[in-house]
Amino acid sequence: MTKVTAQISISLDGFAAGPNQTEADPLGAGGERLHHWMFTDDKTAVDEEAVAEILEGTGAFVMGRNMFGPIRGAWTGDWRGWWGDDPPYHAPVFVLTHHPRDPVVMEGGTTFFFVTDGIESAVARARAAAGAQDVGIAGGAQTLRQAFAVGLVDEIDIHITPVMLGAGERLFGDGLGDVRFEQVAVRPSDNVIHARYRVVR
Amino acid sequence: MTKVTAQISISLDGFAAGPNQTEADPLGAGGERLHHWMFTDDKTAVDEEAVAEILEGTGAFVMGRNMFGPIRGAWTGDWRGWWGDDPPYHAPVFVLTHHPRDPVVMEGGTTFFFVTDGIESAVARARAAAGAQDVGIAGGAQTLRQAFAVGLVDEIDIHITPVMLGAGERLFGDGLGDVRFEQVAVRPSDNVIHARYRVVR
Repeated sequence: MTKVTAQISISLDGFAAGPNQTEADPLGAGGERLHHWMFTDDKTAVDEEAVAEILEGTGAFVMGRNMFGPIRGAWTGDWRGWWGDDPPYHAPVFVLTHHPRDPVVMEGGTTFFFVTDGIESAVARARAAAGAQDVGIAGGAQTLRQAFAVGLVDEIDIHITPVMLGAGERLFGDGLGDVRFEQVAVRPSDNVIHARYRVVR
Repeated sequence: MTKVTAQISISLDGFAAGPNQTEADPLGAGGERLHHWMFTDDKTAVDEEAVAEILEGTGAFVMGRNMFGPIRGAWTGDWRGWWGDDPPYHAPVFVLTHHPRDPVVMEGGTTFFFVTDGIESAVARARAAAGAQDVGIAGGAQTLRQAFAVGLVDEIDIHITPVMLGAGERLFGDGLGDVRFEQVAVRPSDNVIHARYRVVR
């Protein structure tokens, strides 16, 4: 059965983005360090595997508008995401937004669909598109919290980095409700801990 | 050379204690769940090893007053800690307090000394007592943050539990200063992730 999974990198002090997020710096001050493990030349086999596994088992993605494009940018026009012509998703990606827009077909199997009626609708559409595969909440933190809040997340991969940010956007803020986790798999690399939790309801 | 180490259990959302800490409930609402892995009958060999290693290599401990006794209790009188006649430390323990008190000698090698002139003094006295062994900051979170703030912690063992508390006392609050960590060892058990970080200055 299709699971809804989510994955996100956090600092050791619990932030999914640094403070002062702007269009030029959508991850906030220091926030790019959370994703260093993914882009460094020192990426280990464990890290490669963690990324590959997330992408491979997932038949469709849901993404927040801040992850798709610049925070204050008018990306409803020509903006086609941060990832170049061939985004790494290779699957339908349902982008939450308040602005209707026609789907954008990219190379390699990625198509961005724009969903204006909220997280539950986006997940439902992703489920339909994913078939027997999983639906992946690609981020960011706000979208992940929205999905949690309505009980839509079955499993979460948290990449716990040794970074300290001191301030910013917390992955788990207050008011998350009565969420319980069960630790199901942990794979440490030299740079980061890949921890998978099942959401218990 | 003697290192100053620290160890603490945290929730997945970054709390070292739950909300509403009281004398009857010094860990706050739900906070005892952070230490469940340590006391459960399901404790694995990995967990046993993590605890044993912390206790064995450590020649003296520093402890906050809230960890030693009830928060609002007058423990300067007869109070001898939470741990019975033979506490697990088997070494000198320097307890931070505002109230001078004669040392309390327990069974098994533990002696509680009471330090009224602050964290730096407590760590200095623990260093002298530890000889070639390490000094361990036993907790709680506030004492750990104090030691961090004055640059006294070399290494920290964080036991990352799958618990969500939603509110409480954060291990890493704001104003921790420019602390950087390096991941040095990670040992997951079935119940908890034992993660060791070196503090980089």
